[in-house]
Amino acid sequence: MDGQNALGTSIVVKMFPLPFFLHFVLEEGMLEVDCPCVTPEVVLKASGHVDKFTDLMVKDEKTGNCYRADHLLKDFCKDKLEKDQTLSPEQAEEYNKILAILDDLSAEQLGAKIKEYGIVAPDTKNPLSDPYPFNLMFQTSIGPSGLSPGYMRPETAQGIFVNFKDLYYYNGNKLPFAAAQIGQAFRNEISPRQGLLRVREFTLAEIEHFVDPEDKSHPKFGDVSDLEFLMFPREDQMAGRSATRLKLGNAVSEGTVNNETLGYFIGRVYLFLTQLGIDKDRLRFRQHLPNEMAHYAADCWDAEIECSYGWIECVGIADRSAYDLRAHSDKSGEKLEAHEKFAEPREVEKLVITPSKKELGLAFKGNQRMVLEALEAMGETEALDMKATLESKGEVEFKVCTLGKDVTIKKSMVSINIEKKKEHQRKFTPSVIEPSFGIGRIIYCLFEHCFYQRPGKAEDEQLNVFGFPPLVAPIKCTVFPLVKLEKFEVVAKKISKALTAAGISHIIDMTGNTIGKRYARTDELGVPLAITVDNTTSVTVRDRDSKDQIRVEVDEVASVVKEVMDGQSTWADIMWRYPTHTASAAEDEAEP
Amino acid sequence: MDGQNALGTSIVVKMFPLPFFLHFVLEEGMLEVDCPCVTPEVVLKASGHVDKFTDLMVKDEKTGNCYRADHLLKDFCKDKLEKDQTLSPEQAEEYNKILAILDDLSAEQLGAKIKEYGIVAPDTKNPLSDPYPFNLMFQTSIGPSGLSPGYMRPETAQGIFVNFKDLYYYNGNKLPFAAAQIGQAFRNEISPRQGLLRVREFTLAEIEHFVDPEDKSHPKFGDVSDLEFLMFPREDQMAGRSATRLKLGNAVSEGTVNNETLGYFIGRVYLFLTQLGIDKDRLRFRQHLPNEMAHYAADCWDAEIECSYGWIECVGIADRSAYDLRAHSDKSGEKLEAHEKFAEPREVEKLVITPSKKELGLAFKGNQRMVLEALEAMGETEALDMKATLESKGEVEFKVCTLGKDVTIKKSMVSINIEKKKEHQRKFTPSVIEPSFGIGRIIYCLFEHCFYQRPGKAEDEQLNVFGFPPLVAPIKCTVFPLVKLEKFEVVAKKISKALTAAGISHIIDMTGNTIGKRYARTDELGVPLAITVDNTTSVTVRDRDSKDQIRVEVDEVASVVKEVMDGQSTWADIMWRYPTHTASAAEDEAEP
Repeated sequence: MDGQNALGTSIVVKMFPLPFFLHFVLEEGMLEVDCPCVTPEVVLKASGHVDKFTDLMVKDEKTGNCYRADHLLKDFCKDKLEKDQTLSPEQAEEYNKILAILDDLSAEQLGAKIKEYGIVAPDTKNPLSDPYPFNLMFQTSIGPSGLSPGYMRPETAQGIFVNFKDLYYYNGNKLPFAAAQIGQAFRNEISPRQGLLRVREFTLAEIEHFVDPEDKSHPKFGDVSDLEFLMFPREDQMAGRSATRLKLGNAVSEGTVNNETLGYFIGRVYLFLTQLGIDKDRLRFRQHLPNEMAHYAADCWDAEIECSYGWIECVGIADRSAYDLRAHSDKSGEKLEAHEKFAEPREVEKLVITPSKKELGLAFKGNQRMVLEALEAMGETEALDMKATLESKGEVEFKVCTLGKDVTIKKSMVSINIEKKKEHQRKFTPSVIEPSFGIGRIIYCLFEHCFYQRPGKAEDEQLNVFGFPPLVAPIKCTVFPLVKLEKFEVVAKKISKALTAAGISHIIDMTGNTIGKRYARTDELGVPLAITVDNTTSVTVRDRDSKDQIRVEVDEVASVVKEVMDGQSTWADIMWRYPTHTASAAEDEAEP
Repeated sequence: MDGQNALGTSIVVKMFPLPFFLHFVLEEGMLEVDCPCVTPEVVLKASGHVDKFTDLMVKDEKTGNCYRADHLLKDFCKDKLEKDQTLSPEQAEEYNKILAILDDLSAEQLGAKIKEYGIVAPDTKNPLSDPYPFNLMFQTSIGPSGLSPGYMRPETAQGIFVNFKDLYYYNGNKLPFAAAQIGQAFRNEISPRQGLLRVREFTLAEIEHFVDPEDKSHPKFGDVSDLEFLMFPREDQMAGRSATRLKLGNAVSEGTVNNETLGYFIGRVYLFLTQLGIDKDRLRFRQHLPNEMAHYAADCWDAEIECSYGWIECVGIADRSAYDLRAHSDKSGEKLEAHEKFAEPREVEKLVITPSKKELGLAFKGNQRMVLEALEAMGETEALDMKATLESKGEVEFKVCTLGKDVTIKKSMVSINIEKKKEHQRKFTPSVIEPSFGIGRIIYCLFEHCFYQRPGKAEDEQLNVFGFPPLVAPIKCTVFPLVKLEKFEVVAKKISKALTAAGISHIIDMTGNTIGKRYARTDELGVPLAITVDNTTSVTVRDRDSKDQIRVEVDEVASVVKEVMDGQSTWADIMWRYPTHTASAAEDEAEP
């Protein structure tokens, strides 16, 4: 929460929302919501976060300092593998195995390994406690009574689920549709680390795409099916193979990716990330292993980006089936369902259980109601079994949970039939396909992928460049009066005014530094275009990456910059239209 | 935190950031930051929030239900004034007086009035506790130790103050500059009420403009000095007069508004709000009364907007002097200062105190250090007094706090002089001018100001319209195929694609409803333009407010819409360029 972090995340905030809005929300006609961060306990109880959103923690037994148990074991194994020259092949194999199964270890298993290896507190060398679960949510209290616990949301998704009914209504009660949300999420990490990669407060962008579980096709899948990129299916990971380039269409048709809608979003995420400036050769889609995936999930893929910290999970794209809506329906009693009206009423077979109140009353007296309810609550298989037994034997033993015992049901007490009925609609709980973006992580990787160095004028000098694409560059353009002359400053201010009117974020640098120094500084900030005012009627426009320069009329220059920033033209397009500017001797001297 | 609220705030989020960015951040070249919501206690201790950010609360003595003490007293007085026919003029005067001084009452005074009037808990009629302070911040705990208390920020400003050094550096160590931030703020209100007006989590936009306290002029003040609008200076309020239209330039030159920079922001806020669609006749700038203003503030004006709840404070524009930066400097020991380098070194007079260690040692032995430090720590007045006394009497009694007693200082023990020194720069704590926007409140008022009704076709039918200006309308445009024909749907999809490419938020309504019904619906959503596809080469574009219609070629329509949405052209401009569309008999029939 220091200054660097604030400036770092500010850049994130500037760079992200517009591309996300254009690429996802606008392109797919998504709804967009903004739900509160402070969340009542009941919501996060239903979602499972209150009970299960934990990490295993150990405490320094003397100082009380806390550590993540798995981090300590991981660091120990890695350290051994990297630095211990005396390691036997068997030991190496053991450490490698632990690294592979780290996420699956229980509290007991982690504790046993920590004891076995004699791992101690890294700062003090004191002994450590046994691992115990620590809930990662920031807890607070809502209202003045102290009786309403609440938590800072650990993800934005739950806000969309609890608002499903309104969103569905807003979409004209039609499926499929998606709702998107960008906002803060909070996780009280035991040990924050690695800059923007593991922090306690971060920006998430989440899309919840609601779809009929019986039809997960996607009308626009054809737009992405020819894409080919690095994928890392479950089988390849388990067989120790590496990620391979697959064609998305094949991955779906061969069943590697569970369904078309999931595949569509994988493709769109690929396009989004590469369009932001992520290097496609350091981006892969890794399928979750069975042990990583929640029991209810149909399939799950992570977009992983390689950076100096290794392959980092930056986007999760999961088919969460109907789990979330069902969990909230169950807890709240509010049905979160969709319905499909049939064009023609359909004949369906339905199980009908009709207990005879009279017979049950005679047989069970005061217990009649409990038996009746238990009969009505039978599932189809159980009911059909009972029907068969009643028909063959005339009676059957039947467990009534609310009575805590078996009773004897006779044929006269209940009629069980499959009847044909006309139905006008089908009710169901929609499945959810969820792409979830860790914005800070994406932006951090983008910083690494966009960064490069090139030689300066001085010997051995290396100049830093952030090659941000125009779409994401926080500052789109700089304006430099070549030398400190009032007539140039007047033109610079005029251009600045035109850029402001065009909505182009820019800075004017009026310092007397050489133009070369100013170019170097603007390259380091990742500004795509620089305008040098070296004349009162036309100016020089310089492209950051190619260092090409063209001459453009003063009155035209803001709209030329806007064209490139909006993506209507590339620099190459613009180059054709305007005369090339050849640096004068003086400027050439100045360019480092 | 229900569905309506989520959708309500979503609209807020969609409507606000772009106009704010264009009007303030881009126009003024502001820095933009995004600081964390979870804030360590030490920051909010320094700002005073931990100790003083409280409301006075009373509890139902039986149920424990909580109420705001001032709300109960206010409701009681208002109720009496409105409904009690038997009220004497003296009683009425008393109740009116209480309403006027409500904010100044101490816990004891509030408690006494509640007792005197026999006010009881509104829900149960039970007796109430004495009023006691309740801190409005949501408290939590940072990290796993339980030892680091934190709070959800009650405003975004503190994040900017603690990052001042980085921001100042980022701005090239130059003043003035401003940093802006849009984000969530949290206040654990005792009794949330009035929809978006008093909620526990809300979006704030805050600007901290840092300026040299010795020069609060503003180079662009001339751009706003001719504006004339409703202002409500302190004197007029106290004299019982109403708000009057003042010319901003005069208000500043006559000293009603403290300084040009404050005046500049008042003018810019006026332009911003009216541009969003706030009715200028229901907007006034009210100066804080002496009792409302923090002791350190130089001046403070609230932009108040009139809505069905009365005049609502929506933007505060305060000159907070150097208070905030000083408070953080004092607590953290980190100097939050600016410096002004002089073009030429300046000669300044400086107090120089030179104690004689030898004489002090002889006189005070082991206490020498304490006496020496106390002498060096003297302020200018105290030192010059001592100098005078020493010169006239030869000795002086001097209190040394660290010794807890007076000692006798002789002329030989210290020399005190005013010397001339050359200084190369001036160091100072910048003043802060802070415009702070309650976004939910502005948007709520905007909803009221933009809403109107007009007659439909049917007798007595009234149709609802939200007349949002293009800049803030969440949906810019709708696309309607006139009738369900594949050729029209193909064109509608083509136009939708072009609108998406142009970044225009829109919806297609393919339902078979009459075009009149669809227009009525789109008017109710506040969509400025509707495109009706009634032909495969040209289409009808309809303006929401005038209901005028023009014909535009299919290939051109997206860019025409964009022109109006970007504010490059008005509907009136466009009307001149394209042929008017006259509704056919069938459409005319359809229009309600």
